[in-house]
Amino acid sequence: MTDAVAAIRRRQGLAERLFEDLATKTRVGRGIRRPSYSPEENFAHDLCAETARGLGLEVARDAAANTYMTLPGRDRTAPPVLMGSHLDSVDQGGNYDGAAGVVAGLTALAGLKDSGLVPARDLVAMGVRAEESAWFQVSYVGSRAALGRLPAGALEGAKRVDTGRTLAQHMAECGGDPERLAKGPAHLDPTRLRAFLEVHIEQGPTLQDKGLPIGIGAGIPGNFRHPAIRVTGAYGHVGYAREYRRDAVLAAADLVTRLDALWRDTLAQGRNMTMTVGRFFTEAEHHALTKVSGAVELSLDMRSTEPDLVKALEARFDAIVAEVAAARRVGIDPGPRTRAEVGLMDPAIRDAFRANAHELAIAHMDLPSPAGHDSAAFSAAGVPTAMIFVRNDKGSHNPDERMEMADFMDATAVMGLWLARNAA
Amino acid sequence: MTDAVAAIRRRQGLAERLFEDLATKTRVGRGIRRPSYSPEENFAHDLCAETARGLGLEVARDAAANTYMTLPGRDRTAPPVLMGSHLDSVDQGGNYDGAAGVVAGLTALAGLKDSGLVPARDLVAMGVRAEESAWFQVSYVGSRAALGRLPAGALEGAKRVDTGRTLAQHMAECGGDPERLAKGPAHLDPTRLRAFLEVHIEQGPTLQDKGLPIGIGAGIPGNFRHPAIRVTGAYGHVGYAREYRRDAVLAAADLVTRLDALWRDTLAQGRNMTMTVGRFFTEAEHHALTKVSGAVELSLDMRSTEPDLVKALEARFDAIVAEVAAARRVGIDPGPRTRAEVGLMDPAIRDAFRANAHELAIAHMDLPSPAGHDSAAFSAAGVPTAMIFVRNDKGSHNPDERMEMADFMDATAVMGLWLARNAA
Repeated sequence: MTDAVAAIRRRQGLAERLFEDLATKTRVGRGIRRPSYSPEENFAHDLCAETARGLGLEVARDAAANTYMTLPGRDRTAPPVLMGSHLDSVDQGGNYDGAAGVVAGLTALAGLKDSGLVPARDLVAMGVRAEESAWFQVSYVGSRAALGRLPAGALEGAKRVDTGRTLAQHMAECGGDPERLAKGPAHLDPTRLRAFLEVHIEQGPTLQDKGLPIGIGAGIPGNFRHPAIRVTGAYGHVGYAREYRRDAVLAAADLVTRLDALWRDTLAQGRNMTMTVGRFFTEAEHHALTKVSGAVELSLDMRSTEPDLVKALEARFDAIVAEVAAARRVGIDPGPRTRAEVGLMDPAIRDAFRANAHELAIAHMDLPSPAGHDSAAFSAAGVPTAMIFVRNDKGSHNPDERMEMADFMDATAVMGLWLARNAA
Repeated sequence: MTDAVAAIRRRQGLAERLFEDLATKTRVGRGIRRPSYSPEENFAHDLCAETARGLGLEVARDAAANTYMTLPGRDRTAPPVLMGSHLDSVDQGGNYDGAAGVVAGLTALAGLKDSGLVPARDLVAMGVRAEESAWFQVSYVGSRAALGRLPAGALEGAKRVDTGRTLAQHMAECGGDPERLAKGPAHLDPTRLRAFLEVHIEQGPTLQDKGLPIGIGAGIPGNFRHPAIRVTGAYGHVGYAREYRRDAVLAAADLVTRLDALWRDTLAQGRNMTMTVGRFFTEAEHHALTKVSGAVELSLDMRSTEPDLVKALEARFDAIVAEVAAARRVGIDPGPRTRAEVGLMDPAIRDAFRANAHELAIAHMDLPSPAGHDSAAFSAAGVPTAMIFVRNDKGSHNPDERMEMADFMDATAVMGLWLARNAA
C-alpha cells in the first residue's frame, strides 16, 4: 500500500504542470478569473480531460458539463468513489480554491495506475462546474445538477451577474444539455456512490498557526441566519434619564454581547461554533451625537458542524432576544430566518484519514470547514463524504491565496492511501 | 410675603395673554417659528417691552438687542437680580421653550409691583436673543454677548443657516449695534449681578411621570464627547475561528456594554450621569452578513451635573478603551474629545427655592437639566444661577411641547417668593 503512496508522490510533477497551465491561461492581472460556465472554465475542464486521456483514463461529461475521469474498476457496476471539486473561481481569485481537489484526484489516479493497482470499483476524478455562487447566486450548481438536486427554476431563473444570460444558456454553450438535465434522470445516483472525497485549501489561518500541513475535515457547518434583525427603541434627548430611555444601541450591544458570551461558553464546552455580526448600524438619516438611538439593524450568522448544537443555538437566540427586549424595553424583530443543514463528514473515512496521516507521519488535526464546499451537496444527498484541507493562511477569493506543493502532496497521499486500501 | 405670592398669582391673565399673542403671531402651520434675530423674534421682544412699559417698568436694549425690563430698586447701584430666558425658537418648535422664562419674569414683576413692594435692588426681566444655536451654530449668543463672552469672530463668522447672512448683519437689522458690542464694555458685569433665575419647561418625562408640577434645577450637565470613536479590527471569513478574529462589532459592543455597566453602577451610587451612543455603524461599503466586521465608528456623549464625576468618567472611559482594545485585539482610536463645563446651580438659591415650594405646598423634586440653557452662560461667568422647570413630557423643539398654566404659575410663585424675601 505504501508503494501506491510512493507512486502518487512521484506524480507531483503532473500536479505542478496542471496548476501552472491553469494559472497561465486564466490569470488576469494579479488574480485568477474562471467564471462559472465560461471559456476559462471550459479551458480548465478541457485541460483536465486531455490530461486524463493522456493517462489512459476514461473521460465523460454529464448534461451539466461536469467532467468525469475514471480509472475503471474490476466491477463496473459497484458504487464508484468520486474525488473532486470545482474548476471555476471568483473574479480576482486564486488558482487553488477548487482546482486543487480535481488535481489531487487526477494525481492520485495517475499514481495508483503507475503502481499497477486495478481497483475493485471505478475511481473517478470529477471536475465540478459552477461552485462559486457569486456568478449565478445559486449554490453548488454543478454538484447538485449531477445529483439531480438543482433547485427548480434555476436553469432559466438564475442569470450570470456579468452577462445577464441564463444558466441554461451558459450551460448549453459549454457543452451541457439543459433540456436533458431538466428531464433527468440525474447522472449520479447518490445511493449508488461509495464516497465523495474533496481536497481543498484551508481558507483560514489555523493550520499555518499550528504548523500543520493538513487538516482532516470535521464537517461543513450548518447555520441559521438573520440578515436583518431590527431593534426598535425610541429616539430621545441626550439628557433623558436612564429610566425613561428605550435605547436601541444599548439594547443591540447588549444582545450582541450576550450572544458573544454564549459563543465563548459553548466553545469552552468543546463544541464547534462560530458567530458573526457582520452588519450593525444606526439610521443614517436620524442618528446623531446628541440623540438617544431609536433604531438599529444588525445581521447574525451562527454556525456549527454539530446539527444538535445549531438547533440548540436557535432556541438560545430566541430566548436571549426575549430577555433583552424585556430588560431594555425595546422591540426586537429578528426578521426572516434562513437555515443551512450541517454537511456531515463520514466518521469511518475520517477515522481512516487520521490513521493514514499518522501512518505516513503527516502532522494533522481535525479541522471544521469554515465555508461551504461541493462536499456539502454530496453530504446533503446522503453520500459518504470526507475532506482534507491544505494549509493556506491567506484566505481564498483573493490573489494572495497560496499552497505549498509538499502540503498538497501530503493531502493527496492521505487520500490515495485510503483509495488503495478501500478500493483495491 | 405670601401677599406678594398671591399678587403674582392674580397676574396669571397677563401671562396667558402674552403666550397667546406670541403664539398667534409666530405660528406657522402647527409649530412656532421665531428664528434668532428675525422679525418674529423682534415681535416677541417688542411685545414684552410694550407690556413692560404698560406695567410701569423701565425698558432698555443692549448692543446685542437683548431686552431688559426693570422694576427699579431703592439702591440703583446694588447688583440686580435678572430673571429671564430666550424669545427665539427652533423652526416648528413650541411656544414655551424660552419664552416661559421671560413671561415668568414679567409676571413676577407685575405681581410684586401690584403688592406694593419696592425692592432693595433692581429686579430685571430679561428677554434674551438667539439661544437656539441651530440658527447660527453658536451657543448662547444673546447671553454671552450681554456678558461680554461671545467667541471672537462669531459676529462676522457665524451665518444664519437659512439666510447665509452674518450674525452682525442680522443683529444690526434687529436694533443691535455689533460694532459697539465688539468694542465693549459688556452691558452686564457678571461680578455685579446678584443672581440669574430661569424658569423653563422640562424637556423630558420625569415631572410628568412623578406627578410633580415643578422641578428645582440641580445643575446643567457638563460633558465630554467623542463624535467619532473608531474601532479597527480585521475583516475576515464568516467561518474564522474565534481565536483568530479581530472583530470590530464584538469589540464595539463590548465597549458600549462596559460603559453602560459603568453608567448603571454610577447611578446606583446616587450620582448624576447620562450616557448616549447615538451613532454606531459598520462600513456600508464593506460590511456583509458573511464577513467578520473590520471597522466600526461610534459616538459617545457622557454628561453629569457633578464636575468631579465628569473628570472621573473621562479617566474610566480611557481605561475601559484600553481594556477592550487589549481583550479584543482591536485598535480603538477615540478621536477628538470635546468638553463642556458643568453649569452649577447656586446652592443657597436652590435651598431657598426648595423651602419656598414646601411653604407654598407645591410638590417638587430636584431635577438636573438634560440640556443647555442661558443659565449655563451665566453660571460659566460666575453669576449665582438657579432654574425652575415646569412639567412637560412632550420634549421640546417640536409643536407638541406643552405646559399647564397652573404648573407655570407654581414655578413663578416659587421664584417670586424668593424675590420678595431676598430683594425687599
